[in-house]
Amino acid sequence: MSDTIRLFDLAGADDAVRFSPNCWRTRMALAHKGLPVETVAWRFTEKDAIAPSGQGKVPVLVVGDLWLHESWDIAEYLEDHYPQTPSLFGCAQGRATARFVNQWASEVLHAAVARVVVPDIPAALHAKDRDYFRTTREAAFGRSFESLAAEREPAREDLRRTLAPLRSVLLKQPYVAGAAPAYADHAVFGAFQWARVISPHALTAADDPVTAWVERMLDAYGGLARSARCVAAA
Amino acid sequence: MSDTIRLFDLAGADDAVRFSPNCWRTRMALAHKGLPVETVAWRFTEKDAIAPSGQGKVPVLVVGDLWLHESWDIAEYLEDHYPQTPSLFGCAQGRATARFVNQWASEVLHAAVARVVVPDIPAALHAKDRDYFRTTREAAFGRSFESLAAEREPAREDLRRTLAPLRSVLLKQPYVAGAAPAYADHAVFGAFQWARVISPHALTAADDPVTAWVERMLDAYGGLARSARCVAAA
Repeated sequence: MSDTIRLFDLAGADDAVRFSPNCWRTRMALAHKGLPVETVAWRFTEKDAIAPSGQGKVPVLVVGDLWLHESWDIAEYLEDHYPQTPSLFGCAQGRATARFVNQWASEVLHAAVARVVVPDIPAALHAKDRDYFRTTREAAFGRSFESLAAEREPAREDLRRTLAPLRSVLLKQPYVAGAAPAYADHAVFGAFQWARVISPHALTAADDPVTAWVERMLDAYGGLARSARCVAAA
Repeated sequence: MSDTIRLFDLAGADDAVRFSPNCWRTRMALAHKGLPVETVAWRFTEKDAIAPSGQGKVPVLVVGDLWLHESWDIAEYLEDHYPQTPSLFGCAQGRATARFVNQWASEVLHAAVARVVVPDIPAALHAKDRDYFRTTREAAFGRSFESLAAEREPAREDLRRTLAPLRSVLLKQPYVAGAAPAYADHAVFGAFQWARVISPHALTAADDPVTAWVERMLDAYGGLARSARCVAAA
């Protein structure tokens, strides 16, 4: 039960800059469950270090001999293997429905946030990651970072429209999961923490209910996310 | 406890054509809970009939002296007042997270489906609703039904992209709510039943996992939704 938990966590040139939205999901989930974790600074090009996971992306969580990957699968593992800790989902329906929130965040929200913040990322990267990052991301977007940067303002307007269902929910309840944060919040919050750590550009307006929720999430779990090193503040 | 439940349910020229996505949410929720309902055919312009609800849209549910409106609020009422019946949400987190699914359906999915099916609706309407419907909807879209109809194919392509997070979830589990349908499914299914009843145009491809889920929802609760009168099949 008391295996040390290690998390390979995406870092910038500065070891303390941890900016992966998917790794933040896992860190928030671990904090929710009160499980201590040892994070390992990892860079995009250090594929060998996580090879035992059978793939090349983080988060990778190592629990004893077990190598886990995929933030959703990690959350399910934590829920099932630490039943004595606070639940991430509440019940089977809560888990199933949180999967929808998770997929919305992964497939819709992350793409919308990326269009705002990706041009800020290269400056924060370790030198050995820069070519890899530019090549893979420019291929994914089908355009250069320079052209993305030139359209940051319309991208931010699009993002704010994309947030409509989240905003409506947060006008009715303090967290996506209801009265207190849980995995449905972690799944969405990762994207906001990604932007906060890596970019000086605010995603949402000060008076947006989403902004107030982000502030609550920054305070959750003893202020874990608020204490993170941010490039913009360096 | 045994008050008769009445539902004001949007109808076309044919009383049996019931095509409101939000009314279908309520009908599926009532079926889920095994609560009998007497539906009342209602048209857009019959505002007087539902005036006791304090507003002008359906679903309006009447339980004894109580007039309820708004499909989400009706679902919460049913969950709270019929605790001995099958749960719509499973637990508090399930309810909170289902609200996100509901808002995504209301704010994103309905708009995407509307661009495909709205031009088919006037032909099915009662004569007294036609001017009201065209005037309000053309104002909402900022364009004529004729110009919407001319862009049905790109609208359908957009819709299929919009369905990405739903599709991902349904590749992993049979229902949005998990192993069995519940309100997270009803909230989304309403839009598909709306299109099925009112339009001859299929929303999704035959091999889309979303299509297979729609088929399962049509069979749920004794085939309630499958037995509905469809304009296209008339």
